[in-house]
Amino acid sequence: MVKNMEIENLFRDILKRYSAYETGEIPIGDNWLLLDTNENPYPPVPEILDDLRKAIENSNMLRKYPDPLALEVRKAILNQLLRDEETLTNRNTVFVGNGSNDILDILFKVFIDPGDDVIIFYPSNGIYKTLATLYNAKITEIKLNEDFSIPEEVFNAKGKILIINSPNDPNGKSYDNDQILKICQHFPGIVIIDEEYADFSNKTCVSLLKNNNNLIVVRSFSKAFSLAAFRIGFALADAQIIKEMNKVKLPFNTNYLAQIAALSCIKHKNKVFAQNEQILSQRKRLTDELNTYEGVSVLPSDANFIFIKFDDKSKTLKFIWDLKESKILSRHFSKPGLYNYIRVTIGTEEENSKFLYEFEKIAQKYL
Amino acid sequence: MVKNMEIENLFRDILKRYSAYETGEIPIGDNWLLLDTNENPYPPVPEILDDLRKAIENSNMLRKYPDPLALEVRKAILNQLLRDEETLTNRNTVFVGNGSNDILDILFKVFIDPGDDVIIFYPSNGIYKTLATLYNAKITEIKLNEDFSIPEEVFNAKGKILIINSPNDPNGKSYDNDQILKICQHFPGIVIIDEEYADFSNKTCVSLLKNNNNLIVVRSFSKAFSLAAFRIGFALADAQIIKEMNKVKLPFNTNYLAQIAALSCIKHKNKVFAQNEQILSQRKRLTDELNTYEGVSVLPSDANFIFIKFDDKSKTLKFIWDLKESKILSRHFSKPGLYNYIRVTIGTEEENSKFLYEFEKIAQKYL
Repeated sequence: MVKNMEIENLFRDILKRYSAYETGEIPIGDNWLLLDTNENPYPPVPEILDDLRKAIENSNMLRKYPDPLALEVRKAILNQLLRDEETLTNRNTVFVGNGSNDILDILFKVFIDPGDDVIIFYPSNGIYKTLATLYNAKITEIKLNEDFSIPEEVFNAKGKILIINSPNDPNGKSYDNDQILKICQHFPGIVIIDEEYADFSNKTCVSLLKNNNNLIVVRSFSKAFSLAAFRIGFALADAQIIKEMNKVKLPFNTNYLAQIAALSCIKHKNKVFAQNEQILSQRKRLTDELNTYEGVSVLPSDANFIFIKFDDKSKTLKFIWDLKESKILSRHFSKPGLYNYIRVTIGTEEENSKFLYEFEKIAQKYL
Repeated sequence: MVKNMEIENLFRDILKRYSAYETGEIPIGDNWLLLDTNENPYPPVPEILDDLRKAIENSNMLRKYPDPLALEVRKAILNQLLRDEETLTNRNTVFVGNGSNDILDILFKVFIDPGDDVIIFYPSNGIYKTLATLYNAKITEIKLNEDFSIPEEVFNAKGKILIINSPNDPNGKSYDNDQILKICQHFPGIVIIDEEYADFSNKTCVSLLKNNNNLIVVRSFSKAFSLAAFRIGFALADAQIIKEMNKVKLPFNTNYLAQIAALSCIKHKNKVFAQNEQILSQRKRLTDELNTYEGVSVLPSDANFIFIKFDDKSKTLKFIWDLKESKILSRHFSKPGLYNYIRVTIGTEEENSKFLYEFEKIAQKYL
């Protein structure tokens, strides 16, 4: 006897109107220059690879479950990574997750029942809307101003959580602490500032944690620390919030080698940050060179990508397609307010030279 | 101005009556024999360590996001790991998650709205109740018979999902395919069989997938493949279900080195399974030796642990505590129906000798 149920009747209704988060394209074949996923162009520094090798030699640890609370990593974040900041109080502590997405998912598990209000912005990282939909939240999407600044209506927003990406994907600009502070003061719920790209900027709102217990700052090891493959990120917040996060997270959410790699990154942070200086100087180079083209302007960026605006939006896709012909992937968002832009990850000096060379060729055809 | 909100008013109500999953104790200091967490006593085989070393040499991959769909791992599971089983049809396919807990979490995201009925058993793996509570499901907990068999009332159960651990933790016995088939036929929702320990048994219900599209089988690389540190597991189900799972999972849920390690395990599965033969022979040894004690009986186990019953329950904690004095951790569950038992993970031959030696000393005091 075969049981062939109408499975689709068992799926949650929400899945019918849910669109999954779109990851970057993974092209087939070699020699692609992938400037579409905002990965760091540099592999982890050699000291981190050494620590990973040692961890594999000590193979008895590999058969064991990782520390469920990632205590060593959490201590290192507080005592070494943030030591110079001296902005946290005893009330503040740290949580470690399987990438920043895991942290956001956990925050929804802590705060959101179906119908609860979640405030997000458009455009921003698509994962916020994806998660809010999945948790059946009532979503209020505030449209950013044309220059991607936050409109005044944010100060009237009410809800359980409000999520800001700073620097914001896709435009790359950080929001000022004055503004974030004012939002924390006005908003009656939790303010999550997703600072996944903040290590490429000199701005962070970590200093606001001290006086705002409704603020949660989310950080990532994927971008500035080149650990995207490992899946590890952290959140800073009031200890009362971290306690609930640890209760609802999956018991062994972060993997052991990610914990090892994160610890090593923190130990060698000066070397990592020195390496990232090249990304910042290349950001300036790309911005300056592209701004010389008529009809093209690059938005100021605090992240490891730039957002390039074409005055004539019919040119945008021509550039995307021709770049792809040359085996360079960049990102276009076919969405309101974004048709005129392409987002390009900052590569190594050599990669950026290749990009600029191809850009020049395409510009000669279309600009 | 300091913002000091009453954060606890923002937490979901459910968290007040939610108890977090309890992981095993992590003792301070060295030389502990940890027989409390059902980890494989053998590290991954050397070939797997080689493949991990190669992956670290190829460090350019470490800065990149892992394949979000884990395609290579999924192909290897279907074409190599399950090749000899020849039981899957074209309808069936595979999903890869950040450990089996991530898979269960995703299944709740696919099927469970607040108030939906979830059927679980008592006693069983505590994560099922933890997740069902978190997703605000209506939980029906069916009490297993005294011999841990499934009572007849299961055939009247109605709900969205029903979860069986087979072999069941903590008693270690698998359920028969006849019974699982009958449950699949009767139950109007999804039947999840969590086979995290099934590689230590000659039983699996994978062959039932062909004719039951409401069956989902969850497997783990943590136990038989010694990859607990990496967090990787998989699920087999109808392609229609896997499609929805891929939609709702976090975009990059499994880490790159876990994908590498899983691929390597599959390639070297014969060596891994040969190594696990020692666990099976040690299971027989422990069972036989402990059964010689008056007032002590070991339940038949299909897993990498044994469940030891003491006729006099006042003896149980004495054994637990004295074992701990000798730096051996085992597991006691202070819960109804389980007071008479201790659960002991099967170690290496040498570790089991140490356990039996200490057990004998304690037995001389109390039995």
